[in-house]
Amino acid sequence: MNDSEHGDWQDTTIDSAQAQEHPEVAQAVRKIKELRQSIDNVDTAIVSLLAERFKCTSEVGVLKAQAGFAPADWKREDAQIKRLHQVAEQAGLDPQIAEMYREFVVTEAKKRHQRIADAGGDPGVLDIFA
Amino acid sequence: MNDSEHGDWQDTTIDSAQAQEHPEVAQAVRKIKELRQSIDNVDTAIVSLLAERFKCTSEVGVLKAQAGFAPADWKREDAQIKRLHQVAEQAGLDPQIAEMYREFVVTEAKKRHQRIADAGGDPGVLDIFA
Repeated sequence: MNDSEHGDWQDTTIDSAQAQEHPEVAQAVRKIKELRQSIDNVDTAIVSLLAERFKCTSEVGVLKAQAGFAPADWKREDAQIKRLHQVAEQAGLDPQIAEMYREFVVTEAKKRHQRIADAGGDPGVLDIFA
Repeated sequence: MNDSEHGDWQDTTIDSAQAQEHPEVAQAVRKIKELRQSIDNVDTAIVSLLAERFKCTSEVGVLKAQAGFAPADWKREDAQIKRLHQVAEQAGLDPQIAEMYREFVVTEAKKRHQRIADAGGDPGVLDIFA
């Protein structure tokens, strides 16, 4: 995706060369770069943790398929929602964000569970990364 | 949400009392409980990291609004996509999951940046959790 695909100022890319003509802007650019490094570090940690999470849910998927359990488990989901709301509030995160995160990972895990069940309990090539 | 709202076997909740009549099922239930504890621990870590991420992006939002930068930054997004694909591959995660994660957090961060810009650079009550 490049700038020409998007409208005018809404697509401003921060350019330190231009910014240095305006010291107050240059300071903002420096601070934004620092914050982006922290954001990147957080993303590296989260993506690594997601790898572990999907390894676990893939194992759960195999066990469920072998035992004939369904991909969905509503009691478990209710408990997860309540728990993650508390974690979010204690951490200072809008609980809506935690709920969106939960929805995203649980939906993806269930899709993979269904694929494992359809393959007779074999995560095999259907779930090579989890 | 309770079981009566959903169709038959697709909603199986794992019940250890029933499961103990069938030892192989009981073993699967025990293993699933163990894995769920790991999943919960991962979720606690991720939600806590998301709290830190949204604190950073809220700060970026204030700096962008004050400097007149746009909420979106396509060069930054392209770099993030490439970086997170690499992190995912190294961690053994389907890069599609990493891309969905990125899309989710960046979309939410941009919505909040826009709200901060509309409020004249004040995250105030519009962004109380970030």
